[in-house]
Amino acid sequence: MTERNIRVEALDRPAVDDQTVEIVERKGIGHPDSLCDGIAESVSRALAAAYLDRVGTILHYNTDETQLVAGNAAPAFGGGEMIEPIYILIVGRATSEYEGTKIPTEPIALRAARQYLDAHVPHLDVGTDVILDAKLGEGSGDLQDVFDDGSVPMANDTSFGVGHAPLSETEEIVLNTERRLNREYAADNPELGADIKVMGKREGDRIDVTVAAAMIDAHIASLGEYTDAVAGVREYVTDLAREYTDREIEVRVNTADDYDEGSIYLTTTGTSAEQGDDGSVGRGNRANGLITPNRSMSMEATSGKNPVNHIGKLYNLLSTEIAESVVDEVDGIRDLRVRLVSRIGQPVDQPHVADVHVSTESGVAIGDVESKVGRIVDRELADLTDVTRRAVDGEIATF
Amino acid sequence: MTERNIRVEALDRPAVDDQTVEIVERKGIGHPDSLCDGIAESVSRALAAAYLDRVGTILHYNTDETQLVAGNAAPAFGGGEMIEPIYILIVGRATSEYEGTKIPTEPIALRAARQYLDAHVPHLDVGTDVILDAKLGEGSGDLQDVFDDGSVPMANDTSFGVGHAPLSETEEIVLNTERRLNREYAADNPELGADIKVMGKREGDRIDVTVAAAMIDAHIASLGEYTDAVAGVREYVTDLAREYTDREIEVRVNTADDYDEGSIYLTTTGTSAEQGDDGSVGRGNRANGLITPNRSMSMEATSGKNPVNHIGKLYNLLSTEIAESVVDEVDGIRDLRVRLVSRIGQPVDQPHVADVHVSTESGVAIGDVESKVGRIVDRELADLTDVTRRAVDGEIATF
Amino acid sequence: MTERNIRVEALDRPAVDDQTVEIVERKGIGHPDSLCDGIAESVSRALAAAYLDRVGTILHYNTDETQLVAGNAAPAFGGGEMIEPIYILIVGRATSEYEGTKIPTEPIALRAARQYLDAHVPHLDVGTDVILDAKLGEGSGDLQDVFDDGSVPMANDTSFGVGHAPLSETEEIVLNTERRLNREYAADNPELGADIKVMGKREGDRIDVTVAAAMIDAHIASLGEYTDAVAGVREYVTDLAREYTDREIEVRVNTADDYDEGSIYLTTTGTSAEQGDDGSVGRGNRANGLITPNRSMSMEATSGKNPVNHIGKLYNLLSTEIAESVVDEVDGIRDLRVRLVSRIGQPVDQPHVADVHVSTESGVAIGDVESKVGRIVDRELADLTDVTRRAVDGEIATF
Amino acid sequence: MTERNIRVEALDRPAVDDQTVEIVERKGIGHPDSLCDGIAESVSRALAAAYLDRVGTILHYNTDETQLVAGNAAPAFGGGEMIEPIYILIVGRATSEYEGTKIPTEPIALRAARQYLDAHVPHLDVGTDVILDAKLGEGSGDLQDVFDDGSVPMANDTSFGVGHAPLSETEEIVLNTERRLNREYAADNPELGADIKVMGKREGDRIDVTVAAAMIDAHIASLGEYTDAVAGVREYVTDLAREYTDREIEVRVNTADDYDEGSIYLTTTGTSAEQGDDGSVGRGNRANGLITPNRSMSMEATSGKNPVNHIGKLYNLLSTEIAESVVDEVDGIRDLRVRLVSRIGQPVDQPHVADVHVSTESGVAIGDVESKVGRIVDRELADLTDVTRRAVDGEIATF
Repeated sequence: MTERNIRVEALDRPAVDDQTVEIVERKGIGHPDSLCDGIAESVSRALAAAYLDRVGTILHYNTDETQLVAGNAAPAFGGGEMIEPIYILIVGRATSEYEGTKIPTEPIALRAARQYLDAHVPHLDVGTDVILDAKLGEGSGDLQDVFDDGSVPMANDTSFGVGHAPLSETEEIVLNTERRLNREYAADNPELGADIKVMGKREGDRIDVTVAAAMIDAHIASLGEYTDAVAGVREYVTDLAREYTDREIEVRVNTADDYDEGSIYLTTTGTSAEQGDDGSVGRGNRANGLITPNRSMSMEATSGKNPVNHIGKLYNLLSTEIAESVVDEVDGIRDLRVRLVSRIGQPVDQPHVADVHVSTESGVAIGDVESKVGRIVDRELADLTDVTRRAVDGEIATF
Repeated sequence: MTERNIRVEALDRPAVDDQTVEIVERKGIGHPDSLCDGIAESVSRALAAAYLDRVGTILHYNTDETQLVAGNAAPAFGGGEMIEPIYILIVGRATSEYEGTKIPTEPIALRAARQYLDAHVPHLDVGTDVILDAKLGEGSGDLQDVFDDGSVPMANDTSFGVGHAPLSETEEIVLNTERRLNREYAADNPELGADIKVMGKREGDRIDVTVAAAMIDAHIASLGEYTDAVAGVREYVTDLAREYTDREIEVRVNTADDYDEGSIYLTTTGTSAEQGDDGSVGRGNRANGLITPNRSMSMEATSGKNPVNHIGKLYNLLSTEIAESVVDEVDGIRDLRVRLVSRIGQPVDQPHVADVHVSTESGVAIGDVESKVGRIVDRELADLTDVTRRAVDGEIATF
Repeated sequence: MTERNIRVEALDRPAVDDQTVEIVERKGIGHPDSLCDGIAESVSRALAAAYLDRVGTILHYNTDETQLVAGNAAPAFGGGEMIEPIYILIVGRATSEYEGTKIPTEPIALRAARQYLDAHVPHLDVGTDVILDAKLGEGSGDLQDVFDDGSVPMANDTSFGVGHAPLSETEEIVLNTERRLNREYAADNPELGADIKVMGKREGDRIDVTVAAAMIDAHIASLGEYTDAVAGVREYVTDLAREYTDREIEVRVNTADDYDEGSIYLTTTGTSAEQGDDGSVGRGNRANGLITPNRSMSMEATSGKNPVNHIGKLYNLLSTEIAESVVDEVDGIRDLRVRLVSRIGQPVDQPHVADVHVSTESGVAIGDVESKVGRIVDRELADLTDVTRRAVDGEIATF
Repeated sequence: MTERNIRVEALDRPAVDDQTVEIVERKGIGHPDSLCDGIAESVSRALAAAYLDRVGTILHYNTDETQLVAGNAAPAFGGGEMIEPIYILIVGRATSEYEGTKIPTEPIALRAARQYLDAHVPHLDVGTDVILDAKLGEGSGDLQDVFDDGSVPMANDTSFGVGHAPLSETEEIVLNTERRLNREYAADNPELGADIKVMGKREGDRIDVTVAAAMIDAHIASLGEYTDAVAGVREYVTDLAREYTDREIEVRVNTADDYDEGSIYLTTTGTSAEQGDDGSVGRGNRANGLITPNRSMSMEATSGKNPVNHIGKLYNLLSTEIAESVVDEVDGIRDLRVRLVSRIGQPVDQPHVADVHVSTESGVAIGDVESKVGRIVDRELADLTDVTRRAVDGEIATF
């Protein structure tokens, strides 16, 4: 095995936490774009599992293209209904036959998508409120060859991935606001829908957190209960944000509401897909769960791609993993960016370039950490198939 | 009210049982065309019920156009699976708003269709093996006016309906073969699928009954079990046919099988829609459940139309009802045909022509029954809304 | 070759022209159901031609399932426009690969459908006013074997076809009303759209002809011009009907119009598919171009099926051809019905039963014509592949 | 009018041209993602024009969601064909009625999309090789209010846009490689398809340009002609790159080709959408035509959104315009980034923050340019409706 082309250098910008203005966004799991990401990734995992189960190896597939067409709803205090169904088209490529074994790719995809929606948007009655359709073709001929067993897969494209660590304070707040609202808070407050969009803006030492949270009408009997629900979210997020920063915090929830006009963010299903918000894969959160214009980002959709040789997925997941490992294992790192560049047809564990840019804490020199960082990068690249495995098993989030 | 234009005359052909050659067919409830009929009618009933529930009157709709695109399956002894899903498109017109009340027409249709399939083709996993889609538009402007409450609806078209009674022996056999196989026999023999097609051909006093019955692979472990299943059906149908005739009977089941080539009628779901057989509404059984080229037939699809003013439904159901009532109440009738012709824009209970052609038993003259028959026709026409009500309630079969 | 099972007998009912009440209908080529028939048949012919061209033989296909979902239009004097497109889904089965040669079945179907619409509904801008979609799957495995070259194909089903000759006066009038309106009359009167529905009802010696004719708004500047157009059609049809009968004639055109309410049959494209009228294959005219409840009819859709071995097409076309040949060649026949019954897996030129029922003119006995008729039936059956050829070449109408 | 919140500061990173490693990508206009961008934007422009034409003002719409499902082709030297059509679904929201005027939103969208494809991928026979479908719903109720005439529109979201100038050398090369190949070069070399993907990677003073160019089989008769075509592109790009840099250049074209295996980038239509490459809006180039991980990027799809109040479009276009204006008008600027942050419901010409980060050339201080830059930002914001107008007129590229 040839030596890997790994570089460790100083980051040529301030750590994000030290920049003057920072913008961070997260589209919650119930957002139409995130629903597409989630469906695409659940379809991907189901296909990978089916291939492993039926033919012992993952065959070529790529399902990173779900399209959601919004429906129409008539929300009402106490419980409304959907008027026109949401239409979701699962799109992609999947090998449907291998050495005589047929793989029911579309049934697998439809089942995975339905289960995903049932689990994450339970107020949506799939099949009644949602029309699930699928168009999974075969890939181009040369892509249909199976991955060689045992050997390292070859990169499907000349592309790149990028990862960062640690999260800035604003990023921590934005990420955890959505996650904890959708997990702990929603468990106790069933009026909160899954479509929670969080925008964090930091100017100097002041962080503005803007939350748009879809409320579920079946659990809200009146405008009074709605305003209580909004206040509850604001309070919860304010407390939560305190855990991650000492900076000044201002939290706003559902700022587009206009109580005088009766315009509030009330939904029947907990997602804006019920009324006019379309969605598709790869348009929202990056692999680390955030949209971070202050940081280098890849345009590749991570969700739905196969995790064996699709660089757009593999290198975004891996570079994030590497960044997190380095920060875990090496002291004195204030900000770090990992970039992996592939060349089509080369082994995925041999990136064309693996460069790591580090911002160290005061008193720490790049030279102090350089070799340690390099070894971690090398180790993680050598262990790349573990990323594939964990992606298939659903242990790594992709959006 | 004007007097109705009712005529009673002698039938100008021999009773069907007296004709030399007779052909009768029934597509069972699991046949792709019948599935479409069944879905269309269940959607119709669900819409009618929703309109009554929400606005107190049935609004204009017509859902007689479901299209089924066959899937692909890999049946196997002991249980196979579907490889490519069936696609079903529910098509039609339905009023979606009335005096400010919104009617979720597509969600209602999708739910009704899914429930229908769940009930009648339980081996089909709707949402995984079947993609259910819907395109329900609004009708043309002048059709969207609500039916006037209280008054008799006006005919939507210049059209006609036709009904017959009693069934000939061959018709009884064909109809009951499918019905009883799908009910009693299937209850005890789970290997029998719902897609049972029965063709009866009578030449003189010999009746050939040809049954094509989809067997369900999960309940068939071997070719031996398959041949047993076929033999079981043949025996059951032979005994059954005996109940309806003294004529010679020959029953054939799954005649297209070729055991040497391993070509048998084995399915995973019990319907040929799983592999290559498309279907649509109005292409199979007429309103009396049969295809009877020896008798006058209407080309109108009865299933899916609204039963308020759609002549293509109303007059086919009613003429059949009248024919059956006459035969029930009047002695000496060997064969009888009722035709109802509408004129667009006239009250539905005032057909342009209602003519009844009667073949009496020997010793009975037309004059003996004429007035009695006429009164029954008049009475049933006066009670036309009852047909509407029973159609909405699902008390009348449409295919 | 075995002798064919051909029977010639007396017709057991009066000739249709002698029956008291007769009902005849024709849906013109622009009617939504006929559009589907026409598309299905043009797709069928295009596929057959492509197979012959590319692999030298017609491969298995069946495209008898086009579904049309109506659009929405805003017709206006002087020219309106479509508001929502018509959606047409071409459905069926077609072999896409044969001994390494790929057949682009869906592109072929889409092109044929578009060309058909361009030719027959020129005011419809396909691609803008019409969304053309296609779902052509493969058939079931055993049906995908190619037809054996040279030998006679085997019947695909146990089914039957029926044909009649000569047409009754009412039938002649109904058929020619639509045909000549859509050809000669429309050539000089561009305001007449292709969606012309003709209903003929004869009671004794009086024939009522009801025409529903879609007028095209670009050629109609005012209500006055509209009423002139309606009057023109009425006059033309009245004269035309005179050519076929001495009976009393009454012609009505667009009887559902209500000038006071401004409700007239004005369209932008010349078809009611533009606003609310859905359509599908096999729901309208039988193979002879008519709906004739006074005569025996087959429920099979003739349009779109392959003309090689699909009995639902072949026997309906052939029995009509035979009936017409007999009437052409044998004197003294007043009415005649030909029925051909197949058995699945048997050669198509060896029907299970070929029975001919004849009503002779006074002075002619069945025995006088029996052998001559039988020879014609035998000859036409022997020449069955000619029907296939002419169907592929588009020399035989199917609806 | 309140004063705008404009900040001008020093860029906190080196100019991109001074960074060690730089990665730049452009997906050419024939790339599946770009086709979706192009269709979405052409639909957007057609709708805006139709609204202006019919009701005098742009009504609410958002059509940034086209989905492309790849087809299947059989390319061959001298000319192949498509085997399975590409399916393109136009998705979005568009107001279809305003004060009694109906807007045929889907016909407008379908026509625009077809014209776009005809113009940009002429080898694709739309309607035969491409199925164009559309699902344009209405937006949510509160979004359907028309924009107030005369006044400044309010931001539709809390979002942001970002723009940069001038382009780095690598960016100039990547952008112009695709543009000039698709314009001048293709005009003389018809074998070059529109699907040209360019990746630029600079390490220090060496720039690698990797071009993947779909060749069109009708213009390529042999492998020899193919290799000539590849060589021609390489030579042209090498010369072209020279115009923009003195750095070392290496150009590679179609590196995934494997001549021994006969695997080359030969297509029938000039786009990889013909075989297995799906696409959707917003997944490729940013508003400046490039993917630039070295620079701050917005995740918002610029194409297809309405340019009146949709921040995801307006601010990305405007910030790019501002950046270019500043570089045009102010000397001494080496790199510049403009960010505009909106707040939902605030006037679009009053961003929450407008910050400009500048890297000056040596000898120029921020203070030297600060006020001049600020005035340009202020002026361009005041003239924001001009961006709207030019976007509607198609004078601004969006991808």
